[in-house]
Amino acid sequence: MAETFAFSSRETTSGLARLGTLTTPHGSIDTPQFMPVGTQATVKSLTPGDLHAAGVQIILANTYHLSLRPGHERIARLGGLHRFMGWDGPILTDSGGFQVFSLAHLARVDDDGITFASHLDGTPQRLTPERAIEIQEALGSDIAMAFDQLVDATLPPAEVGAAMERTHRWAERCLAAHARPEQALFGIVQGGVDADLRRRSVAAVADLPFDGIAIGGLSVGESKSEMAATLGVVAEALGADRRPRYLMGVGTPPDLLAAVTQGIDLFDCVLPTRVARNGQLWTSLGRLNLRNARFLDDPTPPDPECSCEACLNHSRAYLAHLFRAEELLAYRLASVHNVTYTLRLMRQIREALADGSFASLRDAVTAHYRSPEAVR
Amino acid sequence: MAETFAFSSRETTSGLARLGTLTTPHGSIDTPQFMPVGTQATVKSLTPGDLHAAGVQIILANTYHLSLRPGHERIARLGGLHRFMGWDGPILTDSGGFQVFSLAHLARVDDDGITFASHLDGTPQRLTPERAIEIQEALGSDIAMAFDQLVDATLPPAEVGAAMERTHRWAERCLAAHARPEQALFGIVQGGVDADLRRRSVAAVADLPFDGIAIGGLSVGESKSEMAATLGVVAEALGADRRPRYLMGVGTPPDLLAAVTQGIDLFDCVLPTRVARNGQLWTSLGRLNLRNARFLDDPTPPDPECSCEACLNHSRAYLAHLFRAEELLAYRLASVHNVTYTLRLMRQIREALADGSFASLRDAVTAHYRSPEAVR
Repeated sequence: MAETFAFSSRETTSGLARLGTLTTPHGSIDTPQFMPVGTQATVKSLTPGDLHAAGVQIILANTYHLSLRPGHERIARLGGLHRFMGWDGPILTDSGGFQVFSLAHLARVDDDGITFASHLDGTPQRLTPERAIEIQEALGSDIAMAFDQLVDATLPPAEVGAAMERTHRWAERCLAAHARPEQALFGIVQGGVDADLRRRSVAAVADLPFDGIAIGGLSVGESKSEMAATLGVVAEALGADRRPRYLMGVGTPPDLLAAVTQGIDLFDCVLPTRVARNGQLWTSLGRLNLRNARFLDDPTPPDPECSCEACLNHSRAYLAHLFRAEELLAYRLASVHNVTYTLRLMRQIREALADGSFASLRDAVTAHYRSPEAVR
Repeated sequence: MAETFAFSSRETTSGLARLGTLTTPHGSIDTPQFMPVGTQATVKSLTPGDLHAAGVQIILANTYHLSLRPGHERIARLGGLHRFMGWDGPILTDSGGFQVFSLAHLARVDDDGITFASHLDGTPQRLTPERAIEIQEALGSDIAMAFDQLVDATLPPAEVGAAMERTHRWAERCLAAHARPEQALFGIVQGGVDADLRRRSVAAVADLPFDGIAIGGLSVGESKSEMAATLGVVAEALGADRRPRYLMGVGTPPDLLAAVTQGIDLFDCVLPTRVARNGQLWTSLGRLNLRNARFLDDPTPPDPECSCEACLNHSRAYLAHLFRAEELLAYRLASVHNVTYTLRLMRQIREALADGSFASLRDAVTAHYRSPEAVR
């Protein structure tokens, strides 16, 4: 257990949902909580000041990308990732396992690690459990992740199971390699959408002295019901485990609401900023696509219930114009809004869990997001 | 003379340099002053809040671009350009003459106006003096510009002179067409780099009841000495004329300093934001190219004398990383800096004019900008 890391939580009346506080060397986080993704040491188009204004408490950064560019040794020489990017709040780094799976070329897995070609320049690279920990220690994140092997969940169970078993062996090596006492280390449960594999993975990973338990391998193409069923299996297998539970790569507002009731404390996802750059806003009325021509003459704010810079100062018409004109400000304002919206939703979730109104919040938000574009 | 428009200025001890105050319906401007360019109703990547923080007092927007997209009638329906873009300070709109010259395809000039193909979709478009005024009145800028005909200054004097004579006839038509009493209207002196043509143009334009006098057709490829000589001819021809003098499309820090001593009150230029997006910072030490590899390990602020968001919170190393990673934040932070730098330089110019130290400011800044990249 990391020296300055702590997590306390209490049950609520809403399913398995919990309310908690996660303490790190760079501050405390209210849970359930969402982490915007700063892949290359920047949440795309936003400054640290924007993140604070949006209510962001913790961000995620990518080990794979940062080790390739600008290099983790360089970041360490420059004082670590917090100082490098000017963000003084908590940072969680992933281990690179997902990026090797999704971005790298020619990945070859052996029992010791993964060899692959950089997506930047094709140079040969290698990640092992020890190397993934070394990189994350150099970056100096508050929470590091164990190095895992991702596989396509639709592969035969034997292949999914083999990757899972390897992930378990690598988990122990990550724990053995990890040396920074102030940095927390989370293990990752794998096993695809196979209930038996997931139970075995929980048993193996939860048995290790990790500071938290992440659920990997979801939100990669499986159906909503498969995700829900898998989260149910994991929750049951974890039982009364008091460590923070982190669902990796999730998600949309309905997905966040659903997973909270299954006991998830922590989320990350690129969607709020990625869909923003495509012109899609998440609003209190549902999705709003700024590329739709009808918004060119709409003088109303993007989201009447939002107080972000975009909604306070600008109209849908202006944002729709910026997107058509391919102006950089379009991507920035839409990103400010979607991050603000997502963080506000998490705050509303916590408030609703506290006062017992979670079900009505979940039903209202989910209804707004049922249609592809609900704003009239 | 526009009803709410006023300009007062006083001589200084530095050449022909003046210190003044220009009053518009959206506030007063200290002169000499620089206008960042918001071509498509946005200074690229920056919010109105950024502009205020950088000390911006007035911006320029482009009639040509806005009439094509999103359309000036639409902007008028949405409450005018200030409201549309969320900028409550003064706005000057150009007339479209320069953009037709530089951007449009197949431009054909006749005595009544210019027919051209939109650079967006090739549709046929036409600008006349009356149309340029109509568009600017719909946009609701504080200062409108007369519609002029640009030509390549290296053409034979007869052709430059013919375009100039047409510009003079169009100037009278712009004045006749102009109907918004609260909007100022500036005339434009043309004539290329030919002293005789410039004198004739000043005589013709200054004789008309414009609210200000702009100098067009410079910073389009002529040499520094040709620009200086032409500004000298114009200044001599204007003599004691008390209206504000606006040098269009200028410029770099040394160009701004040089033109101030020739009596220029107002400038606009895309350079601060355009070079920023290419990784070039203007700093108190001179130019700094963030694409240079040596900055990847430089922990110092971009400009040690600057207090913009980029210089307060980030290092050269971080910005150099963002440019290599092609992150949107790179363009934003570099733009914030260069606009802040340029506005600070204008403030320093005004302070130096007031206390008699202008010559040493000019010499110091010009020396810093002598080498292609002066930062060591």
